[in-house]
Amino acid sequence: MRGEIIAIGDELTTGRILNTTSFFAASQLFAAGHEVIAMTTIGDEVELIGETIRQALARADFIIVTGGLGPTTDDLTNRAVSEALARPATFYPEISRKIAAHGTNNTAEVQSALEKLAWLPAGAHALHSEARTAGYFLVQDGKPVFFLPGVPHEMKELLVETVLTRLAVWEGEEGRQVRQKVYKVVGLAESEINNKLEHLEDPAHGVRIGYYPVFPEVHVSLTVAGDGEASIEERFGDCDTAIVEILGRAIYGCGNDSLEGVVGRLLGWQGKTLAVAESCSGGLLAHKMTKVSGSSAYFLGGVVAYSNELKERLLGVPSAILAQYGAVSGETARAMADGIRRVTGAGLGVSITGIAGPGGGGEAKPVGTVYLALATAAGTDDHLVHLAGDRWQIQEHASQIALDLVRRSLLDSEREAV
Amino acid sequence: MRGEIIAIGDELTTGRILNTTSFFAASQLFAAGHEVIAMTTIGDEVELIGETIRQALARADFIIVTGGLGPTTDDLTNRAVSEALARPATFYPEISRKIAAHGTNNTAEVQSALEKLAWLPAGAHALHSEARTAGYFLVQDGKPVFFLPGVPHEMKELLVETVLTRLAVWEGEEGRQVRQKVYKVVGLAESEINNKLEHLEDPAHGVRIGYYPVFPEVHVSLTVAGDGEASIEERFGDCDTAIVEILGRAIYGCGNDSLEGVVGRLLGWQGKTLAVAESCSGGLLAHKMTKVSGSSAYFLGGVVAYSNELKERLLGVPSAILAQYGAVSGETARAMADGIRRVTGAGLGVSITGIAGPGGGGEAKPVGTVYLALATAAGTDDHLVHLAGDRWQIQEHASQIALDLVRRSLLDSEREAV
Repeated sequence: MRGEIIAIGDELTTGRILNTTSFFAASQLFAAGHEVIAMTTIGDEVELIGETIRQALARADFIIVTGGLGPTTDDLTNRAVSEALARPATFYPEISRKIAAHGTNNTAEVQSALEKLAWLPAGAHALHSEARTAGYFLVQDGKPVFFLPGVPHEMKELLVETVLTRLAVWEGEEGRQVRQKVYKVVGLAESEINNKLEHLEDPAHGVRIGYYPVFPEVHVSLTVAGDGEASIEERFGDCDTAIVEILGRAIYGCGNDSLEGVVGRLLGWQGKTLAVAESCSGGLLAHKMTKVSGSSAYFLGGVVAYSNELKERLLGVPSAILAQYGAVSGETARAMADGIRRVTGAGLGVSITGIAGPGGGGEAKPVGTVYLALATAAGTDDHLVHLAGDRWQIQEHASQIALDLVRRSLLDSEREAV
Repeated sequence: MRGEIIAIGDELTTGRILNTTSFFAASQLFAAGHEVIAMTTIGDEVELIGETIRQALARADFIIVTGGLGPTTDDLTNRAVSEALARPATFYPEISRKIAAHGTNNTAEVQSALEKLAWLPAGAHALHSEARTAGYFLVQDGKPVFFLPGVPHEMKELLVETVLTRLAVWEGEEGRQVRQKVYKVVGLAESEINNKLEHLEDPAHGVRIGYYPVFPEVHVSLTVAGDGEASIEERFGDCDTAIVEILGRAIYGCGNDSLEGVVGRLLGWQGKTLAVAESCSGGLLAHKMTKVSGSSAYFLGGVVAYSNELKERLLGVPSAILAQYGAVSGETARAMADGIRRVTGAGLGVSITGIAGPGGGGEAKPVGTVYLALATAAGTDDHLVHLAGDRWQIQEHASQIALDLVRRSLLDSEREAV
């Protein structure tokens, strides 16, 4: 199907906020086999919103509108839709009831502002069954029009969970079949992966492979489309097997997997625990591990030791090692990993020490020089990497490498256990 | 002036590349006092390109088009312009000569492809005097239309160096002025702020206030537009004073300020140091502090202590306190803050302990129950908050409240010092 994406908000047209929601929608729609005709961003202006939606209706099979659904006076999307599509604002008691139910702690003032969210253009259907996030859809001229919040994480959740599934059904009525899978790859560059998989691409027979760098990972999508389910299944199975064989352990997961989630799952399965010692990554590694629900079962904790003094005091790094090799060295990384494992009693200890920049680099150890170490019952290894990019990229990349060290070590012990 | 931005490229509508050039253009145009009506992104389709440009000409004072100017077969912008605006492709010998002059190392094949860059729609003027990058402008219906490369760094250079300067001259003839400021607010909900500031809104006289929730903060923008500089300045000054007075300390900064950056600046000015002890926020607070370049000057480090054992061992929380009050309590929060301050020797110690969920909540302490404590030379205080949302939101919100506790304490000591 051919669709249009419309993003609404003065914060976007004034360049204050980078519009990532339209980008996310476009990549998801593309992966699902749809085509995006146009992505339009406009400010909070009633007439312009209406005009843009009417224009999109004239040429698209479906429309996704994001933003302007909130309770404040500058949220004008609903008014614009009511006027442009002659759908008078209608009170939805069911939505009002649900908003009240999960907002019992709100002040009367906040509650009265939220009441606005229960007034929608006539014919609207709420997208979130519990009305925890704004968002609805309606059918205009036989075409589905989705209205999603502009807040990125709410928009993304509703897009993936409700919009794509509804569109897939719409698509299904036309008889076109699509199968799709996303592989999450760590430790290989986009172009390396492209070289390895290029020979599998066969657009003439509906086999498409997409490469999406999501720093510091690469996501690879396999899409197989066609008219008959049987032929799709066979081609999809062949390609899937080939990709898994070619990329091997570089694939850490699929779909909604995250690297920290996969590491947590492996730790849980093996009944092991992890603790982390961080210098230049400044807590990012601990933060990633604890983003995962239930991580307290296998993640014991960590130490962020910026100064040498804290490395000695909290991790027991010998001052002789710091003096002889410096804080950024394989020796210090190993002593940090050993130290956090000893202090916490964790099965695995992982450490990061390096220079995230922009200051602090020298000729021998430029910005991006990072040592990592992994300590297990079997011993302690250190690794030196040279990372490119700014401070954010170096911290992000270093913590990803640490997670991957843990993952590969756990995969090794799984193999040994068999 | 009111303008439109059009970005062209299949890589954008398929979600393979995030469109940062339109965002950059919007922010620069806004800063220069212009208004962007719409930002449209479309694929490499001749008819759609023409249609989009014609539509923009009907409502805008100027247009910026990016992308599709290169030498390959999928670069179709020039053809679309020639057809849509009836400006036949014309050979520009001067551009051809310059391309040849700085491409002496090119193969014949490359050189012949580059020749395509010397064919532009009739009436075009090259933007780069040395033709090192594609890019031209033409005047259609008395309005300037700029065509820039899609490659971000080339586009940005030409935008700043040629487009903005040309528009400034155009603008000068019309004399419309805009002043704008963004306030970053912490600790107040969007609707509360809206209620407090609503009476200042006066769109009829060019005074607009925008409310943008960027969880867990709210950004408030004040925009004043009008014809005379003097009257704008006065209205802008009055509104600015009123907003600062009404919101007070809830405003932590303006423009590009971040809360962790402001806290870092205050610590630096006062020559103080900070260390953090985290339980449910799992390292996010340390990560936020260390995202800031140069944070090693005032941030000593932190401990992520998920288990009671680590709270005792690394932070010296007495086991009697944990036994009597539990890990999620004001007493434990205070002992954690005191502990991290003592262990690291930092001037300020801040702690977070709570239930981020989704598991672990009970009737007395449901998910979202969070205790924070701040320890300084003056003593230690704890704070209980009940936070809504999912795990991510609770961690994010808790670490923001911790940063804000530190900020307000530093502002207090600043006031005392005066």
